[in-house]
Amino acid sequence: MIAIKPERLLADLRTLAKFGQYKTGVDRIAFSDEDIAARKWIAERYREAGLEASMDRFGTVYGIAPGVNKAVLIGSHSDTVPQGGWLDGALGVIYGLEVARAAQEAGYLPFGVDAINFQDEEGTYLPCLGSRFMIGTIDDAALDAAHATDGRKLTDAIARARLSGVPRKLDPKRQIAFLEGHIEQGPRLESSGNKVAVITSMAGIRRMTVTSEGRADHAGTTPMNMREDALTPLLRFGSFVVDVFPKLSSGETVWNIGRIEATPGAANVVPSGAGLSLEFRDSDETVLDRIEVAVSEQIAALNKAGSRMSLDVTTRITPTPMDVGIVETFEKAAQDVGYGHERMVSGAGHDAMFLARKIPTGMIFIPSIGGRSHDIAENTKDEDIVAGCVVMARAAEILACGA
Amino acid sequence: MIAIKPERLLADLRTLAKFGQYKTGVDRIAFSDEDIAARKWIAERYREAGLEASMDRFGTVYGIAPGVNKAVLIGSHSDTVPQGGWLDGALGVIYGLEVARAAQEAGYLPFGVDAINFQDEEGTYLPCLGSRFMIGTIDDAALDAAHATDGRKLTDAIARARLSGVPRKLDPKRQIAFLEGHIEQGPRLESSGNKVAVITSMAGIRRMTVTSEGRADHAGTTPMNMREDALTPLLRFGSFVVDVFPKLSSGETVWNIGRIEATPGAANVVPSGAGLSLEFRDSDETVLDRIEVAVSEQIAALNKAGSRMSLDVTTRITPTPMDVGIVETFEKAAQDVGYGHERMVSGAGHDAMFLARKIPTGMIFIPSIGGRSHDIAENTKDEDIVAGCVVMARAAEILACGA
Repeated sequence: MIAIKPERLLADLRTLAKFGQYKTGVDRIAFSDEDIAARKWIAERYREAGLEASMDRFGTVYGIAPGVNKAVLIGSHSDTVPQGGWLDGALGVIYGLEVARAAQEAGYLPFGVDAINFQDEEGTYLPCLGSRFMIGTIDDAALDAAHATDGRKLTDAIARARLSGVPRKLDPKRQIAFLEGHIEQGPRLESSGNKVAVITSMAGIRRMTVTSEGRADHAGTTPMNMREDALTPLLRFGSFVVDVFPKLSSGETVWNIGRIEATPGAANVVPSGAGLSLEFRDSDETVLDRIEVAVSEQIAALNKAGSRMSLDVTTRITPTPMDVGIVETFEKAAQDVGYGHERMVSGAGHDAMFLARKIPTGMIFIPSIGGRSHDIAENTKDEDIVAGCVVMARAAEILACGA
Repeated sequence: MIAIKPERLLADLRTLAKFGQYKTGVDRIAFSDEDIAARKWIAERYREAGLEASMDRFGTVYGIAPGVNKAVLIGSHSDTVPQGGWLDGALGVIYGLEVARAAQEAGYLPFGVDAINFQDEEGTYLPCLGSRFMIGTIDDAALDAAHATDGRKLTDAIARARLSGVPRKLDPKRQIAFLEGHIEQGPRLESSGNKVAVITSMAGIRRMTVTSEGRADHAGTTPMNMREDALTPLLRFGSFVVDVFPKLSSGETVWNIGRIEATPGAANVVPSGAGLSLEFRDSDETVLDRIEVAVSEQIAALNKAGSRMSLDVTTRITPTPMDVGIVETFEKAAQDVGYGHERMVSGAGHDAMFLARKIPTGMIFIPSIGGRSHDIAENTKDEDIVAGCVVMARAAEILACGA
């Protein structure tokens, strides 16, 4: 039996949080000194746990169970957003460490447990760099082009970190499944009281910018009927999103206008330009299609009425279903250990989204207090952290016993 | 008879436009080297015209007609906004020069014509500094506190310009009226075909910021019904402005949302804050009151429905009626010289707004091509520039003859 040790799990999580600690959170962006130090510390823990540990030139850390030719792979990422939370990514990494360590302690199992700590899931340079490279969807051109929003290049960051290990490709013959644990980043589990959510799908995402053109005029001297105000049609469009999206929703759909602006942005100048960002997410691609069509039609209708708006769809991420067998394994595991559970769609992307393209993949979420995420206020009760790891260990055990 | 000379008028305007020339426009912000050089050039022109010329420590230039104890005062300002037009302010200054010069050439008139070039009407440091100081509404504390948006202090700008002349106060016993010519800064005259607009009033202005508070959440992981999105109520308010303001308008009312933003401003983060600027203008204070009440009520209604919005009225400028006698004088002048004219409310503020508090004051507008203003594209046909000056000269003549 794989028996995790709660005190050790919590102690390791708290130690990891000291690398780049920022108030109650962590600032450990990919390739920073704190990030590399944390990764070296994780490699050392893998080694202590009896795994063959290595770090590649990106900083992804592998912990390979010795003496087996099949293994369940468990992990996440230890990089964070600037001034982020202490659990996002870190929780899944330490779950991987603890379950792999407990599996070593358990002695012989038909299959082993490998652990992994991916690099740059948060996309400082290239979102999910580690997991995408591992499944072979990043080429040299993408690596050469990758840079942070402030212009720093990924290749310089790698050189500065003095890393040289050869990346491992995913080995679907060995790695029979990928499991990832994560905090929910939302308030549903806290609200339902369940200890665990079993993820059935990663939501698809459509992200777009809507822009409107007009003409700058003096707002005091130009009569209303002689203006070409760029903002007015954008406000009409915003009102459409507020009023009509609830009718287009599947019930589970989420959407957001996160950015809006008018240029030149002076109180007494009629806007010559205006723009906003819109995104919506659902696990059902037909719902995403339906909403995108409605958005296009609304913009066409506003343009027919005289506005000059345009729509640029910048992101179309297809929903990624999790493996049905893994979903059922997680549910059985939660049942075996006696924890309330529910199914959930993940609104956010994770490394699991990419692993799922190659091997059976699944995720669990544990409650996050107040649903806080990407924020130093992010937190989870110790007992919930432990409960999640118990479910993860039981699921690994079921899979590793080939049952 | 005061007979202006069109070629001289246009040549002086074009020479003035070379001080700080920027492409087809002018960049001559108050107290810049170009601004001070232009003011010295104007003082020289006043002197050549036979006026007693002086420049005070702010850069306001006076041209006093000798040998008379009553005079019509004519002028405007030669400072510009950054990358502004060549006529805004400059036109009225050269009208003052040309009419005063022609009055000197005309020989004896019962009253003289004084010319003036006010400083910083555009408010780089202190809006309408010259005219407000002249009527005595700026004290030392306001001068000490005044600074540009980049932090530069007015007192430093004055010291740097090495100016020391003593400012003149307005002398209502001598200066029986103030007349200002200006381009329209809007498209109405171009549209009506009239050569001249006689201003009946400067519109009152209400300017306010509307802010909305919410809570930042991950836009992918937080269900719609668990969010406190700051932008949604602001979009509802924007839609109220778009749909309801036309019903609240006097027909002449103008309004503008010039600035809008959401914070933190990321596509995948539910806005924790949002804000916009709103202004509206009308010559009738009761209309302004009616709209402000409707705005307050709308925000109260949205707050009752759960939003957290607040309204901050930052500017309340009372409408300034022009002197009825001057309005009729301008209309008679236009009629005398045979130019089509109409009455108009000025949506923008001008130095005349302050002079009107002390002495009978009036303004005329001439057409501006495409209504362009505060832009290097600003322009007016030569014949319209001349026509405006002919009307101004005739009005001065009527007033200066005491008839």
